[in-house]
Amino acid sequence: VKRSPATRLDPRHLADGYALASWTRAIRQSVLRDILPLASEPGTLSFALGMPAPELFPREALGAAAAAVLADPEALQYAVPAERLKEHVVALMAARGVQCRASEVFLTTGAQQGMDLLARLFVEDRGTVLVEEATYDGLLMAVKPMRPRVLTVPTDARSGLDVDAVESLLCRGDRPAFLYVMSDGHNPLGVSLAADKRARLVDVAARHGLAVVEDDAYGLLHYEGGAARPLRALGPDVLYLGSFSKILAPALRVGWIVAPEPLLPRLSAIKQASDLDTATFSHRVAAAYLDAAALPAHLERLRVEYRARRDALLQAIAAHFPEEARVTRPRSGFFAWVELPERIDTRLLLPLAVRGHRVAYVPGHAFAARDSRRLASCLRLSFSSVARQEIDVGISRLGAVLKEALRP
Amino acid sequence: VKRSPATRLDPRHLADGYALASWTRAIRQSVLRDILPLASEPGTLSFALGMPAPELFPREALGAAAAAVLADPEALQYAVPAERLKEHVVALMAARGVQCRASEVFLTTGAQQGMDLLARLFVEDRGTVLVEEATYDGLLMAVKPMRPRVLTVPTDARSGLDVDAVESLLCRGDRPAFLYVMSDGHNPLGVSLAADKRARLVDVAARHGLAVVEDDAYGLLHYEGGAARPLRALGPDVLYLGSFSKILAPALRVGWIVAPEPLLPRLSAIKQASDLDTATFSHRVAAAYLDAAALPAHLERLRVEYRARRDALLQAIAAHFPEEARVTRPRSGFFAWVELPERIDTRLLLPLAVRGHRVAYVPGHAFAARDSRRLASCLRLSFSSVARQEIDVGISRLGAVLKEALRP
Repeated sequence: VKRSPATRLDPRHLADGYALASWTRAIRQSVLRDILPLASEPGTLSFALGMPAPELFPREALGAAAAAVLADPEALQYAVPAERLKEHVVALMAARGVQCRASEVFLTTGAQQGMDLLARLFVEDRGTVLVEEATYDGLLMAVKPMRPRVLTVPTDARSGLDVDAVESLLCRGDRPAFLYVMSDGHNPLGVSLAADKRARLVDVAARHGLAVVEDDAYGLLHYEGGAARPLRALGPDVLYLGSFSKILAPALRVGWIVAPEPLLPRLSAIKQASDLDTATFSHRVAAAYLDAAALPAHLERLRVEYRARRDALLQAIAAHFPEEARVTRPRSGFFAWVELPERIDTRLLLPLAVRGHRVAYVPGHAFAARDSRRLASCLRLSFSSVARQEIDVGISRLGAVLKEALRP
Repeated sequence: VKRSPATRLDPRHLADGYALASWTRAIRQSVLRDILPLASEPGTLSFALGMPAPELFPREALGAAAAAVLADPEALQYAVPAERLKEHVVALMAARGVQCRASEVFLTTGAQQGMDLLARLFVEDRGTVLVEEATYDGLLMAVKPMRPRVLTVPTDARSGLDVDAVESLLCRGDRPAFLYVMSDGHNPLGVSLAADKRARLVDVAARHGLAVVEDDAYGLLHYEGGAARPLRALGPDVLYLGSFSKILAPALRVGWIVAPEPLLPRLSAIKQASDLDTATFSHRVAAAYLDAAALPAHLERLRVEYRARRDALLQAIAAHFPEEARVTRPRSGFFAWVELPERIDTRLLLPLAVRGHRVAYVPGHAFAARDSRRLASCLRLSFSSVARQEIDVGISRLGAVLKEALRP
């Protein structure tokens, strides 16, 4: 493996003496992963990572589910994916206003694997993808091996993605492999797509033959009455990504794709190559948990608690942030987005916030699909994993950092 | 997504009205997956799939481990991969004669994901890989997205892979991204690589800068005293794949790669894009199981039982197979390989065996890296999941099928 005369002419990427595939030159660790150690220093109040509150995990019920699963020796064996879990997903989708069949549900190792599988299925090497200017970096990581051209459209902080911009791109002839969009609880913007835009987006996509990948990881965590129905409810061709990571527990690694049936054998073949696409213990534990019908009450408990944390966050921001700061009001999900005056660089400010004031956030640039000056003065706050009574003190610390930075 | 005038000029693969990445034309479901329904018909004795015996899963101990894990709320949270499990892997590797550090251990979702990650890391688009003529089809699936040129070397049924053939290829200028090899309990051949060949292979690889991926999923299941040490014990550059699927339980999806440290951040970045590379519940359950130090006794129990099944298989073959059949004598793993006269096509024979005689196997062509007439008259028998007392009747059924087919 070490560099030798014979490999000198190799076109591959030579790194640390290894001849690697050339796309790996572009490998970067997730920016969020870099922030993890900073944000988890003791005493630091972290609004950085989009983690669910561990005290809300239904540990006892999951323990009972695990015990029930282990009563059957075949539960630990290689097997086709858990059919019962697919049926539960169908019911959950119905609660989101989506009609689908179990034969359209494909189980994944979390929503991230759904992105990876769809990226491999749809994106040509050096193809094109379409995303919002500020988007989930996990999607950008998933498409990286294809070295794609990344097109972006802006997102309005109140009404969501700019559908006109999507249509303009398509009309001028761009042919992205897909558009990636979060309709509810947008990560990082916290915005929900306006109802009229949903209908228009599905229509535009259908007319132009644009594949739409809708990431709905946060859609079941809505805080203001019923949430709007996702795009998949309006267009059966929409490729829908769901996840139990935020509503049950991330370490179970249970997610799903809802996709038109003809795609499922292909998804299965790609997943077989990735990790065998065999029934997992976690998938079975999730199914057993759902058998007990405890999810609706659990979801309601999550909504109540996360809604209270969101309200505490918005209240604290109103009290402590400089008046120049603008913040989104999330109807779903874990995140609020803060826009600051252009002279602020939130990346430069982070070490000061963490070391000087023991408070953490994620700088806007971490979500930039392309270099973006606009996002450099923004930051994302996650209110999901900070205890309600600590939110005010955390935000007052961050307010002090921002006011200090804005002092003329 | 549906085919529209705009997508007609698209270079992508148009399938069922979808514009997919062009490599997906080559997608085939695993042949083994096709055999699953055939082989699992009630009353059929199946020597087809390489499944561990479910009655040997340590269900109670895993239940206790799961309960212990769930005592900590953080155990279900996003987190960096389980450090304690890496330490246990280091100890397990030492039992295989391999010295490594926890910082060289990378945890995966089963060994299949290890193959996928190494394929993405090493194999250029339209690059070259080197495998044995008969090899594990999961590796072939993992490299498929790169549309590689697949070079092959023969394998001797007694001494394993032909090291001279590897050296010849390298000397004539071929530069495969890696050689994929199974040193012990070869799937499908059941052969173990001779000790002198191991040393020579590591030497040849080092001299030519050839990366070696060693799949040791079966190495801990050895039946004739201590097994030979894997290649990784002889060369620290060897990329080693390990798995708990055969020694603990497949549905846990716990595997690992041992690789030189500089590669680990890259593997992590690729796994983050695949499924976030977060600590999983299963990984933590495995760690808690290993904490209880029950694995050595469990492994010994597995070896005793699988050895008895292997012996029963070989005895039954000697009693019931036509004398023209030649069979390997596996020292490790789950498989024996049967070579039959060239006029036999084991693929054509399978429906007759299953429907007419209620016995199943995997035809040799399922493991062919390239079209191979030689493998068409071979078959793989797995002795791992057939109860000891049923092996003789199953093999006598298959013997009848083969004798019938060979009748002049």
